[in-house]
Amino acid sequence: MEERMKYRIGIDLGGTNIKAGLVDQDNKIIAASNTPTNTDRPWQEIVRSMAELAARIVQEGGASIEECIGIGIGSPGTVDSENGVVLYSNNFGWSDIPLKDELKKYFTLPICISNDANCAVLGETKAGAAKGQKNVILLTLGTGVGGGIIINGEVFEGGAPGGAELGHMTLETGGIMCTCGHRGCLEMYASATGLIAQSDAAIKANPQSLMNELVRETGKLDGTIPFKAAKEGDETAVQVINNYIKYLGDGIVGIINVFRPDMVLISGGVSNAGDALIKPLNAYVKEQTFGRDKTKTADIQRATLGNDAGIIGAANLIKGDK
Amino acid sequence: MEERMKYRIGIDLGGTNIKAGLVDQDNKIIAASNTPTNTDRPWQEIVRSMAELAARIVQEGGASIEECIGIGIGSPGTVDSENGVVLYSNNFGWSDIPLKDELKKYFTLPICISNDANCAVLGETKAGAAKGQKNVILLTLGTGVGGGIIINGEVFEGGAPGGAELGHMTLETGGIMCTCGHRGCLEMYASATGLIAQSDAAIKANPQSLMNELVRETGKLDGTIPFKAAKEGDETAVQVINNYIKYLGDGIVGIINVFRPDMVLISGGVSNAGDALIKPLNAYVKEQTFGRDKTKTADIQRATLGNDAGIIGAANLIKGDK
Repeated sequence: MEERMKYRIGIDLGGTNIKAGLVDQDNKIIAASNTPTNTDRPWQEIVRSMAELAARIVQEGGASIEECIGIGIGSPGTVDSENGVVLYSNNFGWSDIPLKDELKKYFTLPICISNDANCAVLGETKAGAAKGQKNVILLTLGTGVGGGIIINGEVFEGGAPGGAELGHMTLETGGIMCTCGHRGCLEMYASATGLIAQSDAAIKANPQSLMNELVRETGKLDGTIPFKAAKEGDETAVQVINNYIKYLGDGIVGIINVFRPDMVLISGGVSNAGDALIKPLNAYVKEQTFGRDKTKTADIQRATLGNDAGIIGAANLIKGDK
Repeated sequence: MEERMKYRIGIDLGGTNIKAGLVDQDNKIIAASNTPTNTDRPWQEIVRSMAELAARIVQEGGASIEECIGIGIGSPGTVDSENGVVLYSNNFGWSDIPLKDELKKYFTLPICISNDANCAVLGETKAGAAKGQKNVILLTLGTGVGGGIIINGEVFEGGAPGGAELGHMTLETGGIMCTCGHRGCLEMYASATGLIAQSDAAIKANPQSLMNELVRETGKLDGTIPFKAAKEGDETAVQVINNYIKYLGDGIVGIINVFRPDMVLISGGVSNAGDALIKPLNAYVKEQTFGRDKTKTADIQRATLGNDAGIIGAANLIKGDK
């Protein structure tokens, strides 16, 4: 019986690739693999790919399905985790997709599904930057801003599907129209997309900025450009970064004033800027939170697991012996 | 033994009055009384008044202290509920006040302390507008904006003191300077104080507004004036109310996108506007939340217990047989 409780399967369903890992009791990934998602396929075929991938990594890990205690899935979009249904995913063009029931056709194992950002924060809390912490917030700064919340060691999804959407807190009332249809969401200002838009506007207003030169060299304006130019002392880029830190920081201030976590983690493309982002961000947030030194303001740190966070977190949706 | 478990004492420590009630197992207030706080007294004297008040209501309720299972206190400010310390209260000029230890000099009963807004939402969930709901948010719209959060039937205070401060989420990045030292807090826009400031600015820009006349008649600009004038069709007042609803609504949208509560309650002075506020507020929020009809957007309702919410909630900090 003890032998049976050995592994959990974690699947990270992404817009480009499906990633899966066989995760052991110490949250180590024993085997991992991935396959293209091809989101334009019928969803049943995507689920079949997930099943095949899961079977493959079990084999590659030298294990048997009987040694696995369950399959966890991190899915984009709005997830009804109770019923295992993806209610809505913009990227996938999905609406009311019964992911869990479909995957049950391939496995008799328990299956759990949650939003991908929820899985990422759970992974980081079990095995990454926030290991051992009880209350953790994760913001993924990519195309959008994903949010994951751990309260007392458990994923907090909100009281109904569509919760924990920290990127869709209002940061600027009446501000930029968000893809969600609401104006002024944090996502519009603190995502990589937001940073790029802010850089683009700054370049147009100040064409002499080093950012302009870097864009011409690389052929592309991405979120690394303003950090590179700021490092070289370009004033326009410094201003862009300072503004971006205030946007992101103001979002985090509100989150800390409500959740008072032990730690705030940052992941996604923008987080690769490292200390150039994290240090001034911490300095700004610590002087802006409610009560300041009268209470606890969490450190902001980079997540450390990268893509593995989603796999390990998804696996940890399955409650085993430990 | 059963007889001993009959009552809990709830104390609502306010800036003007200390209110206390003897609360029975059905969350009915059997006896209640109050006494002036006089915040300029030494804090030990305020605690003595709390003790005397508690003893008095037990007597007035025809009970004995032996029939009480504990004393709950709702305090303003930032409360360390684990240690029973008021870390900071601006109104009281308090810093690190050991409220629980001081009150223990008078009673051997268990004593619990939480922030007043936390007590208010707990009271409403046990006996008021949100009775029977598991996940509830309360916003008190008064001088400031207080926030109370119930998750799975329990008060959520955050992972450390100074949490659940929903009024200190950023609503307008770089906006109006808040009393907390951070710019753009929800409190600056959605409090009665904020509404009054918005009305004042509108009157100055449009002196012909009916609001101006109403202020001259009553001698005072308060939060009822724009609602009264809007009801009479005053365009400037209608605009003020519409803007105010967007501010408050944008705050609530963010809260719903994170917490997905069963219900959002509104209390405090501004909530007395009733349907003129609640109806358009619900309409606005329901069309702005993430996922819209794909998931659940809570109804916004008025709290129903008034001042009793704080007393009943404070009493319910004490966990009894039920």
